[in-house]
Amino acid sequence: MINANPVDELLNKRVGWLADSGPDDDIAISSRIRLARNLTSYTFPTRADQKELKAVISSIREALENTDAFREYFFVEIDPLPDLDRQIFLERRIVSRDFIVNRKSSALVLSRDEADSIMINEEDHIRMQRMLSGLRLKNIWDDISKTDDIITEKLPIAYDDELGFLTSCPTNIGTGIRASVMLHLPGLMLAGQINQVIQAVHKMGLAVRGIFGEGTENLGNLYQISNQSTLGEPEIQIIEKLDTVIRQIIFHEKNSRQKLIDARKNFVMDHVGRAYGILRHAYAISSQDTLNSLSALRLGVDMGMFSALDIHTVNELFVLVQPGHLQKYAGRQIKQSAERDELRASLIRERLKSKKNKSDQTD
Amino acid sequence: MINANPVDELLNKRVGWLADSGPDDDIAISSRIRLARNLTSYTFPTRADQKELKAVISSIREALENTDAFREYFFVEIDPLPDLDRQIFLERRIVSRDFIVNRKSSALVLSRDEADSIMINEEDHIRMQRMLSGLRLKNIWDDISKTDDIITEKLPIAYDDELGFLTSCPTNIGTGIRASVMLHLPGLMLAGQINQVIQAVHKMGLAVRGIFGEGTENLGNLYQISNQSTLGEPEIQIIEKLDTVIRQIIFHEKNSRQKLIDARKNFVMDHVGRAYGILRHAYAISSQDTLNSLSALRLGVDMGMFSALDIHTVNELFVLVQPGHLQKYAGRQIKQSAERDELRASLIRERLKSKKNKSDQTD
Repeated sequence: MINANPVDELLNKRVGWLADSGPDDDIAISSRIRLARNLTSYTFPTRADQKELKAVISSIREALENTDAFREYFFVEIDPLPDLDRQIFLERRIVSRDFIVNRKSSALVLSRDEADSIMINEEDHIRMQRMLSGLRLKNIWDDISKTDDIITEKLPIAYDDELGFLTSCPTNIGTGIRASVMLHLPGLMLAGQINQVIQAVHKMGLAVRGIFGEGTENLGNLYQISNQSTLGEPEIQIIEKLDTVIRQIIFHEKNSRQKLIDARKNFVMDHVGRAYGILRHAYAISSQDTLNSLSALRLGVDMGMFSALDIHTVNELFVLVQPGHLQKYAGRQIKQSAERDELRASLIRERLKSKKNKSDQTD
Repeated sequence: MINANPVDELLNKRVGWLADSGPDDDIAISSRIRLARNLTSYTFPTRADQKELKAVISSIREALENTDAFREYFFVEIDPLPDLDRQIFLERRIVSRDFIVNRKSSALVLSRDEADSIMINEEDHIRMQRMLSGLRLKNIWDDISKTDDIITEKLPIAYDDELGFLTSCPTNIGTGIRASVMLHLPGLMLAGQINQVIQAVHKMGLAVRGIFGEGTENLGNLYQISNQSTLGEPEIQIIEKLDTVIRQIIFHEKNSRQKLIDARKNFVMDHVGRAYGILRHAYAISSQDTLNSLSALRLGVDMGMFSALDIHTVNELFVLVQPGHLQKYAGRQIKQSAERDELRASLIRERLKSKKNKSDQTD
């Protein structure tokens, strides 16, 4: 493993799960699976002392160090990292908020393309994740299973024949799997059907969260849909159930978009055009205003309203406009949100510059 | 005089008082003087019957017909004109609303450049006006006095040695003069000082109206300031008093703009940028939204934010986005305001296309 802080390298390239293309990625931005695992002979991180936590890190590090699969991975101790660097990991969805806010003596193992990572000493000793663009839950499951096999081979994992994998929080016990897909649903929102869909998803025993967790559901029309139960059925069944529901939502979203274009094309064009106009020409823009405008812009790109503006540029902006990335981009800490709003507007203008609106040529 | 409907010709060129440049026209969009006159041997139009009104028209027409000064003027009978054509005159500020809505047997005499016009049988037999871009009240007074002299020479004008010119409404008696300047005051609005200024102007015995008359004061930050009293002082004194007040307001507006640029430049740039973004990219826009956005755009042009966008393009849009012009532009009647909103957005996009934002190159 490479013992280095990868933040600067990450910032110099496109976010992995956004740079790539994947099936249905006009609506399914990304798919992710996280697995929770714990070592047999140590206390769960939530109750362990510093010494024990450090021992967990050493033991995992040693096991992975000499494994081919992890040769090119970064190994990062979190404690000495500046706040801003931790925030970059969070904003790129590599780690959880809990991991960078509440944890001590924790470490991160990260693949160069950001697709694979392992949080050491989050709520569990091991939280491995794999995230790819588009709807690819089954592929991800195949891949992460192999990683899981390697880890299980190298480390004594706490497993009970009846309960399955033992986890710090009982909600993860059994398979320890959390599969989720991030969906962009502006069509259902504009059609006024989004709440209905969310309620239906809840009823099927799945969780719906906003891009930044619970309570952020209305930001940018981005919804993260995941399994809630981890016990009582095999992983593949959990994944297939989620996959089926996601495909239904995608069908409804496509349907809504088509209906809007057929019946209210000018309304949609206006919605997208105004958002683009503001993003392209504002000199101060709040985070919320940005996410909602980017959502409209993403819809416009999918509708073919822009010739030179691709979906990856828009996807990436969703990440780059966040406070941590903005401050890294500026090269300094910015505590005033008003100043960040100016910087955010400047970054967006920069990125959208030279991207031509198709309507420039045709209308 | 040319006996023809000039509407199509007018629509094919820039509005006279907007195409031209004039002193202080960054703030003083236009200056106008109207003079009310009546013929001695006829009843005022408000009380005259059709026969008498027609006799008034004939008598004035005959007097002007053979006068060199009016050789190139249009003579237009209003009664047979379609509603849309009347509205074009109103929207170009050539005639009053009263003239096209309430009057029968009326006529219009209009110079080719739209600067000079005479309404026959508005509230008075003769309402002559001259309107130029910028702050040019004294020039206009010199010019319109000459027109007044010609008319007085050719026609028996009702004049009382004690009261002065007799008019239909007592508020115009004496000089019969109504001088006004249309000011664009976005700086005072953004600085939160506009109401204070309006109150001060009222206290000086002047009237303040919005661009479309009373009650439209907040549209586009456009204010028409005019004298209220017409009796007891000579015309030149009325004009000089108005001119002095206008110059003070212009001073305050310039001051406000400078302070905003010095202390809150980004705020102003954002205000202007967002307005431009919406005008440039909306697919439906209300009249009110348009006027306020055009106001911000005009401020931006004055601040040098746009390299290829000139103030005349913006000025002209203030006229062209009005319902009558929009319908003429479409070549048909459009009763639904929603449809006009789409057409308005389309016209604005068209006009702003290829006009480049300076910030495109520099930021």
